[in-house]
Amino acid sequence: MPTRPKILICSQLVWAQKEVQDLLGDISDIIYMDSKSRASFLAECKPGGKYDGIVGIYRENESAEAIGKYDKELINSLPSSVKWIAHNGAGYDPVDVHACKARGIYLSNTPGAVDDATATTALYLLLSTMRQFSFSEQSLRAHKWKPAGINRLSHDLTGRTLAILGLGGIGRRLADLVQPFPMRVIYHSRRPVADAPSHYEYFANVEEMLAQTDVLSVHVPLRKETEGLVGEKWIRALKPGAIIINTARGKVIDEQALIRALKDGHLAAAGLDVFPNEPEVNSQLLEFPQVTLVPHMGTENQDTQKKMEVRTLQNLRDFLLTGMGKDLVIEYKVKSRL
Amino acid sequence: MPTRPKILICSQLVWAQKEVQDLLGDISDIIYMDSKSRASFLAECKPGGKYDGIVGIYRENESAEAIGKYDKELINSLPSSVKWIAHNGAGYDPVDVHACKARGIYLSNTPGAVDDATATTALYLLLSTMRQFSFSEQSLRAHKWKPAGINRLSHDLTGRTLAILGLGGIGRRLADLVQPFPMRVIYHSRRPVADAPSHYEYFANVEEMLAQTDVLSVHVPLRKETEGLVGEKWIRALKPGAIIINTARGKVIDEQALIRALKDGHLAAAGLDVFPNEPEVNSQLLEFPQVTLVPHMGTENQDTQKKMEVRTLQNLRDFLLTGMGKDLVIEYKVKSRL
Repeated sequence: MPTRPKILICSQLVWAQKEVQDLLGDISDIIYMDSKSRASFLAECKPGGKYDGIVGIYRENESAEAIGKYDKELINSLPSSVKWIAHNGAGYDPVDVHACKARGIYLSNTPGAVDDATATTALYLLLSTMRQFSFSEQSLRAHKWKPAGINRLSHDLTGRTLAILGLGGIGRRLADLVQPFPMRVIYHSRRPVADAPSHYEYFANVEEMLAQTDVLSVHVPLRKETEGLVGEKWIRALKPGAIIINTARGKVIDEQALIRALKDGHLAAAGLDVFPNEPEVNSQLLEFPQVTLVPHMGTENQDTQKKMEVRTLQNLRDFLLTGMGKDLVIEYKVKSRL
Repeated sequence: MPTRPKILICSQLVWAQKEVQDLLGDISDIIYMDSKSRASFLAECKPGGKYDGIVGIYRENESAEAIGKYDKELINSLPSSVKWIAHNGAGYDPVDVHACKARGIYLSNTPGAVDDATATTALYLLLSTMRQFSFSEQSLRAHKWKPAGINRLSHDLTGRTLAILGLGGIGRRLADLVQPFPMRVIYHSRRPVADAPSHYEYFANVEEMLAQTDVLSVHVPLRKETEGLVGEKWIRALKPGAIIINTARGKVIDEQALIRALKDGHLAAAGLDVFPNEPEVNSQLLEFPQVTLVPHMGTENQDTQKKMEVRTLQNLRDFLLTGMGKDLVIEYKVKSRL
């Protein structure tokens, strides 16, 4: 009997316990990561260690609590047999993709699976801030019924302009979710999205877009080039009284510039699902009752989490059967275009 | 010069200061109610009083703070010249429509104008409870980041079943707002709505509908027949783990039956914009973190409030010019059908 490839499940599968057997049980030997520290993880990666010989890894963010991020050190210490890391999540900033490429390891993520839940989170933050529902609940729960003058801060969505920064899967889904109101949708991406509806208006110039924006929703991944992308200049280019929604990554926005604009009233509100140093939340943000703050709930629901787990497993299955998974991240595709 | 009809504006116009002149200034004399108590209001209604001779009244709920509801006593004390009361609001339960009819006074409300904002409030409560966003914000603001096990309480909307009790203007608008997910929409009304999309499934039998319901949204007006309509029997007919949303009137739901079902877990959550004795909120409700509670924010935004004020004024204008406003309430139409 030939040796079957070994797959390391790096963290717990919560919702897809059955699916892991269906998708990988017939074609691989499944090992569950049980290291309690980075040192013991790295030790088991060495020749003769428990993880020696693995060809694929299923990874999710919770594993960082035991062994840390998949930084250059960790990637470079993986057994040389590793050819595929299937990351569970849309954003893969906790994995050093350049270190992976340098070692000839492919990396996949779970686009698509997160679009509905994350865009729904953005819609929630949009409703909460435009209509000031979260502020009003804080007031009710403090036995004060409505906040005084709340309807002066509160607007209908219908007819207002939503600007989407990054019309990928999540931004596109949000644009679709606000169609029934309807809101006017404008967007900026590196280039116009060919198959977007023609009434989603593309702006090559970000600041021209921001000048027409009632609500800006951020949907760009965190990379070196996008850190602090939404900074003082762009925030001030927004219409006075505008709102910023962020369900992407906290570091894409310059938090201090955001707080200044909330303080001086240039921004009417903000809706944030993500923060620069999660789970830490800047205490200055907690002082704004008109700001809605949720603890990275983007995909935090069992339906979507199961979808994501299954999609991550499917990438490993496809890799084992065909040598290639469907969700190879963009850094590999860009290289192949050069 | 002939005497112009007198119109009483019973309460402050906030957003339509200009429109009141445009719509009524050319065809009537406008008097603003300045009574500080019911007694002084009733005194001014008498022959020779300030309100003697008025033919139309613009009314909004805030006037109750000074002079109380438009109950039988107040209606019967109005000058005999009064022929039209234009109420600002969709629900007109604070006006005794039977007393109006008995005195030959017409009553109008503002349907349509409230649909978008109220249905948007229901959508907010739906998102908040299905995904447990409000609970998660309470946890974040208490410096606890995510509530433990929150994704076990949290679901995608997509593919779930939304039951609408009362497919009038607001219920219909909510059904349309959830189409992009999509949710499955089922409904119960007195009869099937002829022009509703055919995939909105009508149930003549409420309990059959409830057995298939993930989220029930209540959109029936408060009348004697609808008080406590959603009671023990209907709540227990819902699928275990279902959610109830109410943006109609608090008294349409039996609050004690609702609280029991939240306590024993039959209901996973509830999203409430309305309460039986506003602005009072039953303190038992505040003990459920998974329940989203907002202080009657249904139409609480400046865009919709202006729309409502203008629509109320338009009914008075149409009455003055043609003898009939467009938004005569259903009790008058039912009579004409008999």
